[in-house]
Amino acid sequence: MNLVLIDPSELDTNNIASFGGVRARHVHQVLGAEPGRAVRIGVIDGAQGVGTVLAIEPERVRLACVFDDVPPVPRVDLLLALPRPKVLQRMWAQLAALGVGRIVLTNAARVERNYFDTHVLDEGTYRPLLIEGLQQARDTRVPLVSVHRQFRILIEDELDSLCPQATRLLADPGPPTPPPAVSEPGGRILLAVGPEGGWNDFERRLLASRGFTSFSLGSRTLRTDTACVALLAVVTALVVTSSS
Amino acid sequence: MNLVLIDPSELDTNNIASFGGVRARHVHQVLGAEPGRAVRIGVIDGAQGVGTVLAIEPERVRLACVFDDVPPVPRVDLLLALPRPKVLQRMWAQLAALGVGRIVLTNAARVERNYFDTHVLDEGTYRPLLIEGLQQARDTRVPLVSVHRQFRILIEDELDSLCPQATRLLADPGPPTPPPAVSEPGGRILLAVGPEGGWNDFERRLLASRGFTSFSLGSRTLRTDTACVALLAVVTALVVTSSS
Repeated sequence: MNLVLIDPSELDTNNIASFGGVRARHVHQVLGAEPGRAVRIGVIDGAQGVGTVLAIEPERVRLACVFDDVPPVPRVDLLLALPRPKVLQRMWAQLAALGVGRIVLTNAARVERNYFDTHVLDEGTYRPLLIEGLQQARDTRVPLVSVHRQFRILIEDELDSLCPQATRLLADPGPPTPPPAVSEPGGRILLAVGPEGGWNDFERRLLASRGFTSFSLGSRTLRTDTACVALLAVVTALVVTSSS
Repeated sequence: MNLVLIDPSELDTNNIASFGGVRARHVHQVLGAEPGRAVRIGVIDGAQGVGTVLAIEPERVRLACVFDDVPPVPRVDLLLALPRPKVLQRMWAQLAALGVGRIVLTNAARVERNYFDTHVLDEGTYRPLLIEGLQQARDTRVPLVSVHRQFRILIEDELDSLCPQATRLLADPGPPTPPPAVSEPGGRILLAVGPEGGWNDFERRLLASRGFTSFSLGSRTLRTDTACVALLAVVTALVVTSSS
């Protein structure tokens, strides 16, 4: 936990934060914080800053906070064919840590229908994992998550409003071709990652017809969680090291 | 399992492969292979090709194999401060799937000494995980693994012979700076990834003095497994999409 994230409701009007549970024990036991000591703190979807410990008990901490800016929303969004629940479970924290603005989960021909029945898609399950990833990476912006059971309706009717004006990239195994340069400084990217068996021809054509440009990191077939981290890293590196 | 990997000892002089266990059950049950059916096959550290099923029983499979070329060794090597055993356990298959020539595990000031006492560093534990990753990614080249308890001796005396003539890169969180271009087509890269708490000043200076150039993907602090996958992907993308 490199940043303690609090809910806006845990902050009073004088910027005094008060919270208990795992985070209080972390501040107390792992950070070994005493009164007067400074702790990195952030408000979920809000600003980051520093909290000075006012009072500490094993199960409750009070901090006087001074906040800086609200961090920007990460510039990459992810369109992801729904992975197996066990794989998705491991991915939430990693995706939030790497930084994505939005996670759009979709059905596809090679996604098994029963993947949609998992508790891993319940906000009560994934939100704590997303927050764990943000606390690791020192970010406050919780990725927006939506789940779509109809691929065609998503791509044809919904995607333009979910992810407007993004450069659309489609990652596909094959001979290596670099992703296209992102021309617009500050522009957003929407990265599509298919199921383990790949998109089928219909899906590939529909994505191409809606402006997705293919690129490839090579012909190695990766597990979805490894592929997602790898592809997000490459695409994020494009935007963070080329323009800011 | 996108490629069935066999040991050279499982291949006779007429290129008939014969094996049992998990791989036989996979060919039988998951691939549903019948006599006459072709299966992708590779010899560990050797060639890839196609095996035609000759005989199949639940616990034993015989294939007549035709081989192509031996795939090249992946062009990136990894110098990694030893992660927590639980994290390393999850990393083996992912590193092999992404493709590394060599994994050099080292001590560092922020590595806890008891991390070296784990069975996760036994070849009997990690080799099956590396092979699992290769079977996922369709590669035959098992990464070479070495473990070094003395950072300074490794860097000063051993690294030049372990990883000769590689472009040396050091990944560090901080303001984003792209990795330097790899000037030599076909050249190798050695990527150094520190412990979760980072290299200390001594380690950083020693690495710099031995030719490691720093780069950064940004200031997000990632878990070692996420960071390794992300960094390997970015560095591999540099070499595979720029020259071949």
